[in-house]
Amino acid sequence: LASKTTILLWGLCASLGASVDIFKEYSFTTRVDHFAYHDERTYEMRYFVCDMYWKTGGGPVFFYTGSKDSFEDLITKTGVVQEWAPDFNALVVFAEHRFYGDSLPFGKSAFQSPAKLGYLTTEQALADYADLVLYLRRTLPGAERCPFVAFGGGYGGILAALLRIKYPHLIEAALSSSAPMRVFAGLTPCSAYLRAVTEAFERESAACAAAIRQSWALLESTASTNRGLRDLQKTFNLCQNIDRSRYSILRDWIHMAYETLARDNYADPSLSGSSLPPYPVKEACSLLTPSDSNGTAPLELVAGVTNLCYNFAGKLRCNDILNIPTSSYSMGFQKCTELVHPVCSDGVADMFYPSVWDQAQETEKCRKTYGVRSDITKGYLFFGGGNLPSASKVIFSNGDRDPWNVYGIKDPPSDETVVLVIEGAAHHEDLRFSSPNDSDALRTARSVAKNYIRQWIAETSNTSDTQPEIPEISQNSTSSRIESGPKYVLALLSAMALTALR
Amino acid sequence: LASKTTILLWGLCASLGASVDIFKEYSFTTRVDHFAYHDERTYEMRYFVCDMYWKTGGGPVFFYTGSKDSFEDLITKTGVVQEWAPDFNALVVFAEHRFYGDSLPFGKSAFQSPAKLGYLTTEQALADYADLVLYLRRTLPGAERCPFVAFGGGYGGILAALLRIKYPHLIEAALSSSAPMRVFAGLTPCSAYLRAVTEAFERESAACAAAIRQSWALLESTASTNRGLRDLQKTFNLCQNIDRSRYSILRDWIHMAYETLARDNYADPSLSGSSLPPYPVKEACSLLTPSDSNGTAPLELVAGVTNLCYNFAGKLRCNDILNIPTSSYSMGFQKCTELVHPVCSDGVADMFYPSVWDQAQETEKCRKTYGVRSDITKGYLFFGGGNLPSASKVIFSNGDRDPWNVYGIKDPPSDETVVLVIEGAAHHEDLRFSSPNDSDALRTARSVAKNYIRQWIAETSNTSDTQPEIPEISQNSTSSRIESGPKYVLALLSAMALTALR
Repeated sequence: LASKTTILLWGLCASLGASVDIFKEYSFTTRVDHFAYHDERTYEMRYFVCDMYWKTGGGPVFFYTGSKDSFEDLITKTGVVQEWAPDFNALVVFAEHRFYGDSLPFGKSAFQSPAKLGYLTTEQALADYADLVLYLRRTLPGAERCPFVAFGGGYGGILAALLRIKYPHLIEAALSSSAPMRVFAGLTPCSAYLRAVTEAFERESAACAAAIRQSWALLESTASTNRGLRDLQKTFNLCQNIDRSRYSILRDWIHMAYETLARDNYADPSLSGSSLPPYPVKEACSLLTPSDSNGTAPLELVAGVTNLCYNFAGKLRCNDILNIPTSSYSMGFQKCTELVHPVCSDGVADMFYPSVWDQAQETEKCRKTYGVRSDITKGYLFFGGGNLPSASKVIFSNGDRDPWNVYGIKDPPSDETVVLVIEGAAHHEDLRFSSPNDSDALRTARSVAKNYIRQWIAETSNTSDTQPEIPEISQNSTSSRIESGPKYVLALLSAMALTALR
Repeated sequence: LASKTTILLWGLCASLGASVDIFKEYSFTTRVDHFAYHDERTYEMRYFVCDMYWKTGGGPVFFYTGSKDSFEDLITKTGVVQEWAPDFNALVVFAEHRFYGDSLPFGKSAFQSPAKLGYLTTEQALADYADLVLYLRRTLPGAERCPFVAFGGGYGGILAALLRIKYPHLIEAALSSSAPMRVFAGLTPCSAYLRAVTEAFERESAACAAAIRQSWALLESTASTNRGLRDLQKTFNLCQNIDRSRYSILRDWIHMAYETLARDNYADPSLSGSSLPPYPVKEACSLLTPSDSNGTAPLELVAGVTNLCYNFAGKLRCNDILNIPTSSYSMGFQKCTELVHPVCSDGVADMFYPSVWDQAQETEKCRKTYGVRSDITKGYLFFGGGNLPSASKVIFSNGDRDPWNVYGIKDPPSDETVVLVIEGAAHHEDLRFSSPNDSDALRTARSVAKNYIRQWIAETSNTSDTQPEIPEISQNSTSSRIESGPKYVLALLSAMALTALR
């Protein structure tokens, strides 16, 4: 029944194309380099504001710290911020992360040179956000003494927590959802993550994980001949010929499909704008272990999974595995520099092929691809090595079905932090629009988080007298509505709201 | 009597030249730019270690955050760190600030180009210190889980507090002495500081401040003729001719003498390695308002004060007011960029000449001198605008006789911070060696601070089990004893220790 309702709602969103023009786009001029004075180059960072629920000066500002998604992708994954806004009389601001979406220092040429992409660092991104918060406080009537609450998911969850920790004078609280704070070398065994991905498939059936585990050898042997490579191109509907040198790209692409399905294993993927079907891992497993395979070759079954993951809506003529989106390029750069994320597998405890993590080799690969050196001390130097002793008024939430939760904060780092582990939930599922299909655990988690945020906002307001007035001073950063006039961005209404509308 | 004893002790230090070789010099290789990945240039930062009191692994590390002084100057001003070390079984580390002392990225050429000096920012300096702390934790046997306590005075006090606030996973507590956290535009009236300097002289006598107030017009009129300018050169024993265009340099130099005397108005200047006499403001006032002036011209009396301030030891043949030391050049750069410090005077409530603060004009001056733009939002963006809501385990101490205390934190920003306002004390006097002449207030302040630090260290040790192990990973930064072999640096023994030695 749950599944049926889900499908219905998903169908609703898709067929009605339900959307509201509730966000306005702005552009904020900020420094490319916040940490060197001779460099005065600036860039235009996009941010988006929904003010329809705001009681000017009487409500907080919900500040979403963008991460690897463009705003347009992000907005659909973070419905809770919009859902809560009316209850809090909140202003909602979404900030787009530098070098993602359309917030590109140096424009498209950013991706051609390490001297440009080099400014893609967490500290620079946090300084962008702090700069924007300061600007909003100074210029937006009623915002000066407002509590600002940061929200973020995944890498954005790291940013939300760090924005609160490093800029506590600008941000009063944070909801940090599915933030992999312990992703860094030495904090979590390199085998943990792919083991967790495997578990997502094992929960469907041991046979499903076994089918995947067995497929790699078959893939490998097929790819060992030119004829086999041609077969793979056809089986996986690739846009390009692949030769032996491109084989690992194909393999990584298949690998990533399982990771994505496990991460986005939602009852209602459409609620976050995804084109995946409900519970996509279950769907993948039913493709991989059909009751009657009718003699379908095992790699054909795997191709069914990649098609499910990458082209469920059927919009792609073929799979272009060589075309790396700029967002993946940027995230690859971050993983090669500061977000170094050791992953290994043995093909026994997990369903992948044996793969060791060799930092020297990875560093060399990064050097070749991006022209930069991996900095594996960064996780300890700047991110605290998973140790955030002075964090306060931060909620760290994780879904226990999300493979990324292996990197999450599980013990509250201080008395003033809250840890939520949400039974059955996938990757930052608590940030999404609510749905009638939400589990009790998810409902409770949202309710607990909401109450803490309400309490922390109240505490801030009680002490707001002691906050200094920000003087009217000329400043370096400016913001303007984009010149082409207001541009409205589509945002899905929550499923609950949709239900109410019917 | 107090004064007599003071003189005796001062005489002791000077005549015995008491010194101990307790610090060893090291060199640490760290990044010039911590916040951009394409830039892999490094520089050698000096740091100094005293391990004679350390109970390896059983005591804390006292980490002094250097500021505008070279280590050699700093060490004499910060005796308390050495005095407390035996009681805590502490290791003492002094880190030298980038672009000061001998810790010069780009060597001496740093001062020739904004593209080099541009990396002189607070965040870069803090990242240097954090990088060094991480390195020490990782490589020094017994240091990994040690509590690290930051100490700093003045600008260094800002750094000590911020190192704790921004890197709480590396630094467990801080003593931030005479830190001008509220120095930024809009937080403190621009008239406050020079009014406080004036009060230091008024406390000696109203006539003293009046004499200074009257001297400026005389200086101005004397400087209006070529003959007068020649007289000024002679009166103030200047090394160079001055013409009308250099007059303001002379005036600023005289101005600075009063500021320095008020700041360093110690009973025992020698305890901090200063060549000033005891209570130099009293001394200056007795020069300015002699019981019998014997017809000495007023500007001759003023010249007595500049001589007292700049050449009391009589080592200078003449005063070279055109030769700006590199440390002043670096500090000038910081005041022109992020530590923008608005100062004004009216010549009525204060003893100076009327002077308004015109930010546009100052910005233009900075642009001309350093080729950079002043960033007056920085104080709010990064330093919290005097608002440090999540600070914890930080002591903010200020001497109520120190003109810089007008910029100090006077209300504890949180339950876990301590504010000490020390009656009668001058600029970070609590950081200096103790002396039998110390006031009860100063003794008490030191004792309170010491107890808090002891308590916070104990609390840290109780929870050290939860700290993650820092893995052995190759890293970017290296440290080495300087190649020429160990170099020992002189440090004054405390006066108390001296007394004990007799």
